[in-house]
Amino acid sequence: MTMSFSHQTLGQRVCFGAGNLTTDVRSETKRLGAQQILLIASGSAQRAADELHATLRIAHRLDGARQHVPVEEVELACDAATQAQADLILCVGGGSAIGLGKAVALKTRAPILAVPTTYAGSEATNIWGVTEAGAKATGADDVVLPRTVVYDAELVRDLPAELASASGMNALAHCIDSFWAPHADPLNRLGAEEAIRALRRGMAPPAEGPSRSLEASQQLQYGAYLAATAFASAGSGLHHKICHVLGGSFGLPHAQTHAVMLPHVLAFNLGSAPEAGKRIAAALGAADPLEGLSGLRAQIGAPRALRDHGLKEADLERAAELILGVVPASNPREMALEDAAQLIRAAWAGDDPATDAFSHRSQQSLP
Amino acid sequence: MTMSFSHQTLGQRVCFGAGNLTTDVRSETKRLGAQQILLIASGSAQRAADELHATLRIAHRLDGARQHVPVEEVELACDAATQAQADLILCVGGGSAIGLGKAVALKTRAPILAVPTTYAGSEATNIWGVTEAGAKATGADDVVLPRTVVYDAELVRDLPAELASASGMNALAHCIDSFWAPHADPLNRLGAEEAIRALRRGMAPPAEGPSRSLEASQQLQYGAYLAATAFASAGSGLHHKICHVLGGSFGLPHAQTHAVMLPHVLAFNLGSAPEAGKRIAAALGAADPLEGLSGLRAQIGAPRALRDHGLKEADLERAAELILGVVPASNPREMALEDAAQLIRAAWAGDDPATDAFSHRSQQSLP
Repeated sequence: MTMSFSHQTLGQRVCFGAGNLTTDVRSETKRLGAQQILLIASGSAQRAADELHATLRIAHRLDGARQHVPVEEVELACDAATQAQADLILCVGGGSAIGLGKAVALKTRAPILAVPTTYAGSEATNIWGVTEAGAKATGADDVVLPRTVVYDAELVRDLPAELASASGMNALAHCIDSFWAPHADPLNRLGAEEAIRALRRGMAPPAEGPSRSLEASQQLQYGAYLAATAFASAGSGLHHKICHVLGGSFGLPHAQTHAVMLPHVLAFNLGSAPEAGKRIAAALGAADPLEGLSGLRAQIGAPRALRDHGLKEADLERAAELILGVVPASNPREMALEDAAQLIRAAWAGDDPATDAFSHRSQQSLP
Repeated sequence: MTMSFSHQTLGQRVCFGAGNLTTDVRSETKRLGAQQILLIASGSAQRAADELHATLRIAHRLDGARQHVPVEEVELACDAATQAQADLILCVGGGSAIGLGKAVALKTRAPILAVPTTYAGSEATNIWGVTEAGAKATGADDVVLPRTVVYDAELVRDLPAELASASGMNALAHCIDSFWAPHADPLNRLGAEEAIRALRRGMAPPAEGPSRSLEASQQLQYGAYLAATAFASAGSGLHHKICHVLGGSFGLPHAQTHAVMLPHVLAFNLGSAPEAGKRIAAALGAADPLEGLSGLRAQIGAPRALRDHGLKEADLERAAELILGVVPASNPREMALEDAAQLIRAAWAGDDPATDAFSHRSQQSLP
């Protein structure tokens, strides 16, 4: 069978290193011909921002970017950018700083240089979002895609282990979903596979002491970067659709929901996506994808049951109905209401995904 | 050990399919907002160009693009583009049509939509070249990178088997060299690996009859695309440097030189690049990379000896000296004059690369 797909590769320069913050940011600002730099920093990225501020000529600096990119903050930042005649937006931080930078770029068309200090992945996408009156408007525009991303492993080394694990699991979910998401294609799968290998290396528990090794931090960084590019291109698959429903309708926490749901969704799809299963298993270094995933989850002490994170038994029926409404047409396996009910109950109870009722039934494949 | 690398991903949209020429080109011209299309076609791509001409509004058409992009032709084409107020350059053909389109884009800044009808790979790079007074000027500029590439497997299905094999071997050389070229990095290696898998599938001899299957043609197309992106990013490694010297100084034919040299270069580097060796072997579906490569070469009847293609024994000494002068600093193994002499003699004589003297000697690795 021949392949039929379209794939948009986003043009971006990435610099990976450890201790490369100042040198790489300096040479990239030169490469971009920046004269007037607007520095936007998250509160948690103060130290890195200070380090850059000390060595670069900064026209204006904004600290403490807030979550969800509030429109008031965007307006202030845009004014600052205009006054400073900013020709480069240097974002240092996680999703908040980069999200604010993107909103400014959307208005001013100035390019972005991003220095991520978390594993969020926003730096690798052309998606922006702004929150106004409680609602988040989002869109895609290549102007908000950072021209250059400088990844310095030193900047993520001290992130709490719990956060690193949650981010790693989230990125892993992006990868696994990329195998059957609406715009899944061979190039996304290739990147997702490499990302899974890297995340596995990065999520291994520290050999000694509480601190993650620099190598492991970098592997998480590299994996999260590739996971973001794969996800941005492939779109939301079954897993993300389900997590979105659960978060939106029942207020379940993001990271925990991801960690609990992922193996159940994998178990559900596996029989109808044998090639994906093989590739995911191999990337996880396991004979079986579910085994590989559960090994990794055990290592990091990932949560097992949605009942522990706010989902009530009384809500299971409605959750199943909502899930049924968001199954992407691209999903390799059709879902019946009974499947959805079993899936959400298993996730609620914390069952072993390998014994999920639906993963043993004879499965109906889409052509 | 942490990684340290910079990687420039080129932003481009690719559409793969079979029989997708008209639909994909139509929708992509719309997406690019094209009103005045300059169509540039190679002589060999007449039929595809006619098909497009019949269904699109074409402002001006240029046929018979010549090899090496002569400057006179560029000037005529630029004049045509200006007169037509072209806002899209639609290139249909191989390296000649796409090369001419790139030269026009360089002057006019109009975007390119490329429809390759060979496996040359120029459509995936931002490199242009123009020949004036016998000398070829080249450069890199993102404006010459086609915005969209439409790959229709039907367009390459009827290429002669010999040409397909030579192109496949050339692309394979790009991939293998990408493992140790000056800008080799994890992302290039990932693409190169996938390309090797695809090229292997595409180069398998037709199961029956003289005609390559559509699937095989598409795998070659996909592999050649990925090989070009990997090579464009990684740069010329030892193999390409050697082939360039042999072509330039002794007038040896491009494709044959590649096919003969590749296994010898691989044999030379292998001991110092065990990880690359493992990955190349796995991608070739073999336990040993040299075995995998020689199996593939036997399948397509690749040439074995440079003595059959114009290299004289009397030139071996000078060739060895020239080779010694172009070994990239990035090469995993240092090369002594004795190595170069053995390498070129083995390639000249058509020795079995697995028995090359230097591949058994204790090897000196670079740190």
